[in-house]
Formats: sequence, C-alpha cells, structure tokens
Amino acid sequence: MDLFFYWFDHLGVAVFAISGTLLAFRKNMDGFGVIVLASVTAIGGGTVRDLILGLPVFWVYDPSYLYTILIAAVLTILWLRFRDFIHQKTLLIADAFGLAFFAVMGAQKALLAGFPPLICVVMGTITACFGGMIRDVLARDVPMLLKGELYATTCLAGGSVFVLIAPHNELLALLSGGIITLLLRLGAIKWKWYLAVFQEHGESR
Amino acid sequence: MDLFFYWFDHLGVAVFAISGTLLAFRKNMDGFGVIVLASVTAIGGGTVRDLILGLPVFWVYDPSYLYTILIAAVLTILWLRFRDFIHQKTLLIADAFGLAFFAVMGAQKALLAGFPPLICVVMGTITACFGGMIRDVLARDVPMLLKGELYATTCLAGGSVFVLIAPHNELLALLSGGIITLLLRLGAIKWKWYLAVFQEHGESR
Amino acid sequence: MDLFFYWFDHLGVAVFAISGTLLAFRKNMDGFGVIVLASVTAIGGGTVRDLILGLPVFWVYDPSYLYTILIAAVLTILWLRFRDFIHQKTLLIADAFGLAFFAVMGAQKALLAGFPPLICVVMGTITACFGGMIRDVLARDVPMLLKGELYATTCLAGGSVFVLIAPHNELLALLSGGIITLLLRLGAIKWKWYLAVFQEHGESR
Repeated sequence: MDLFFYWFDHLGVAVFAISGTLLAFRKNMDGFGVIVLASVTAIGGGTVRDLILGLPVFWVYDPSYLYTILIAAVLTILWLRFRDFIHQKTLLIADAFGLAFFAVMGAQKALLAGFPPLICVVMGTITACFGGMIRDVLARDVPMLLKGELYATTCLAGGSVFVLIAPHNELLALLSGGIITLLLRLGAIKWKWYLAVFQEHGESR
Repeated sequence: MDLFFYWFDHLGVAVFAISGTLLAFRKNMDGFGVIVLASVTAIGGGTVRDLILGLPVFWVYDPSYLYTILIAAVLTILWLRFRDFIHQKTLLIADAFGLAFFAVMGAQKALLAGFPPLICVVMGTITACFGGMIRDVLARDVPMLLKGELYATTCLAGGSVFVLIAPHNELLALLSGGIITLLLRLGAIKWKWYLAVFQEHGESR
Repeated sequence: MDLFFYWFDHLGVAVFAISGTLLAFRKNMDGFGVIVLASVTAIGGGTVRDLILGLPVFWVYDPSYLYTILIAAVLTILWLRFRDFIHQKTLLIADAFGLAFFAVMGAQKALLAGFPPLICVVMGTITACFGGMIRDVLARDVPMLLKGELYATTCLAGGSVFVLIAPHNELLALLSGGIITLLLRLGAIKWKWYLAVFQEHGESR
C-alpha cells in the first residue's frame, strides 16, 4: 500500500518534470538549465510544503526523486528531438495531471503528519500549484494560476474530497480526489470554465 | 496585552489580503485564484520570516489567520461588485498599511524569540516586504520595492524605532514604529520621496 | 584553514552583493531598495540551501555577512557615482565569480553536514543559482539561467569536481572546483557556449 503511494508520488514528480522540460523547449534553454527547470517544477511544490510543515524535505533524504526527474526530462528531450514540435495543449495537459497527483499527495502527507483537515487541503494546493508557479515565473510566462480559468480551485475541490473520504478509505480517497481535480482542470482547459467573482470590467475576457 | 498584539497581527494580515484581492481584480483572476493571491500576499512575508528564524510557521498552528484572509477577501470582492472600480491609489494605500503593521510585528516576533536588534529589523523588513513582493512577481507587476520611491527604507526606519523603544515600552514601540513606517510610506507615495543613491543616468526619473 | 573558508565565503557574498547593486543601478532603484536587492542576491541562495538541508540559516547567527553586504554595496555605489556608467559585461562577470564561489562553498557545507555527493552537488548549484535567479526575477530581467549559454551546467561541473577531490584534499578541491566553474562560465559568456539539447526550432538562436 505504502509502495503504491510511493510510486504514485514518483508519477506526479515525473509528470511535472515533463511539463518543465516542455516549457524549457519552448524557451530554447541550454543543457542542464532544462534539468534545473524540470526539477524546480517537479519538486518545488513539495519542498515548500515540507518547509512550511517543518518536515525534512523529501528529496534530500530520498534522491531517487532526482533520478525520476532526470529520466523523465531525458525521455521528453529525446521525444522532442524526434517530433521537434509540441501541440499547444500538451504542456497544459501535463500540468493538469501533475496538479491532480500533487493535490491529493500533498494533502495526504499533511494528514499522515497529523495536521487538521483545513491545513491538509491548503498543503495539497500549495504542493500542486507552487512548482508550476515557480516554473512560470522563472520562464516569464503568465502563471496558469492567473490565467482566468479554474486552477487553484480544482486543487481545493480535489483536496477537500480526499480529506472527507480519507478517514474511511485511503485508496478511494486518493483516487476520487485526484480524478476530480483532473477532470475539473481538463474541463476548465477545454471549455474555459471560470468562477466569475468580479463583474466584468476593464479589458474584456 | 498579548491579545492586543494578536489582533494587531490579524489586522496586518487582513490589510495585505485586501491588497492581494485588489491586484487580482485588476488582473481579472478566477474564483479561488483570488483567494490564493490574497493568501500569499497576507502570509508570505511572515512565512519566510518564520522559516528563516527556524520557528514553526505561524498560520499552520493557528488557522484563524486563514479565516481572516477569507473574510477580508470576500468583503473586498463584495465591495468591488458594488463599486466595480478602484481608485489607482487604493492598492498603494492598503499596501502601505500592511507594510506598517508587519514591519513592527515582524521585528517583535524576532525580538520575543531572542534575536539581536539588527536581525529583528531585518526580519521586520522581510515580513513587510516579501508578501507584497511575491504578490507583484506572481501578478507580473513591477515590484513596489523597485519603483523608485522609498519602500524598504520605511520598514528599516520603523523597525529601528521599534527596536530602540521596545525594551522600555512595548506598546509605545509598536505604535511609534508602525506610525513612522506608515507616514514615511504615505509621504513617499504622495510626494514621490526617494533617496537618490545613484546620480541620474540613463532613463530620466 | 576554517578561517580561510570563512573569508572565501564572505568573498562570494561580496561579489554577489556587487552584482545585485549593479542591477539596481541599471533599474534606477531607491536608497535601501538597492541594499535589499544586493542582500537577496548575496544570501538568497545560501538561505534556500540551509532551509532545504534543515540547517540554521547562516546569516541569522552570524550577522557579519550583513555588514559584508553593506560594505560591498556602498563601495559599489560610490564607484558608480564616480564612473556613472557600467560596461555591459561587468554584471555578467561579477555574477560569474559569485557562481564559482558558491558552487563549491554550497557543496562543501552540505558535505560537512554529512550529505551524500549527489545532494552536495545539487546544493552547490542551488546556492550558486538561486540568489541570482531571485535577483533577476525581482528586477524583471531574463534569468541568466534561461539565456541559452551554459549556466547551471558550470555549477554542476565545478561541484562534481569538488566532490570528487574533497575526500583527498579539501583546499585543492575547493580551488579546482571553483576555477572550473569560473572558466566554464566566462568561456560561455565570451564564446556563447551552449549545450544544444533540442534541435533548432522556432525562433533562431
């Protein structure tokens, strides 16, 4: 069971590493700079979570995460050398999968450490959003968080579902929380869902 | 007394949450994205301070700060739905109040934890400046810190006054440090005060 | 010997403080804002390293680093008042020296704390790259990490050399690692070296 979670976590890291590599490709970055951007995206959110919770930073004591990043980045690079082209949506979709993995895994780590449900949901959101946020800030892209469609909201929804179900069935909680985050985010990308908190003003959407 | 400081701290959090919400309004952000930007602005500086000092991050163990942010953000959103307009200076003034609160509260927390005066002043400045800095970086605005008028300088001035008076009278120190920061910053906004460290060059001011 | 490392570390801080001040000059910043940018550049990388490793943040317990920054920044400001001009390459070269100092000193601190070689090299790279990255993000410049020529790669190379030689001769490891980082980076600046991981695409280099 723990092993399942462990691989689930590595999968999230790999997916975010791919999204970092894709952005590096679009920005024409150099050799290891690509790896650096991939790494920051993949472990940035979890690092901020561990620091805030006062836990040991996960990848320092388990460098296998760094190998996962390296393998994901190198495979993405090789794939890009063959295709030499990325569809505009590819980066968004990789990011959505990463979001879904980390929204629940981040909440779960906080839950295991004994924090209350509200903090767990917040930590899931931080884990999921901060890696991509750092990636976009470094690459001088508009952070996806700010682009208008649902983004952080999907993590809050998925994390809340996870926290509600987790006391009863951890695996079911993980899967349903993750799938809800993923579907909400993919829907938001496809149909441009947004929660209009402000009335329309200034520049039109 | 401690209760007074506690509410003072919440007031600072609320003011910065308002400034984050105002910027989110100007940038047409979605539902919870607004709350995320408000939160990062309101607790970003204090989080960095606590991490650097090696103290437990304040809001993880007292989630009431998150409710303060939520209430401040929601009220600001409701106000914006009625007015649907913000005066250009409103954001600057909300930011100035937050700066004043946090420059002294940040210094006080470091003082209570037993750090020397220089570190306390630096921590006050970090608490006050970093939340707004993260807000501006995420929203792709020019950080206020870089805009030319006095900004970090006002926190250093207010924090120094606080540290000098605090051993004699904590409440007086808090009020005078905060008021000095606030007046200096409001003056800098109104009369464009700046400390010219470089001779004029390149683009004119 | 320890004293030698101590001064070496201060030298790295001073060099990065100079690079921060030079960028502040180009951006027409105000009084203490200059000092803030210089400080963030000089101690940002080491702060992130210490937080991730779970060590006490170095400058909080040894404020002499803050004086080093102040002196370096003030001297740079005075020099700029006389010259009122900086050669386009000056900032790049100051940054290259800082990179070389911190790539090895960051790795060494992790090694002394007992971390495995891979983590040491990563920590050297973080120490060296993050201060400049925060500087460039705050000042809204393209991060050097992203500009195409070798940057993070030079730190990984220098850090690896350090980690390989350190068990045999610490001083030799320090010097050779630092010199390799410096020469690679200066060469990359002069001859526009880059590692082409992607085939040419989109905008030409």
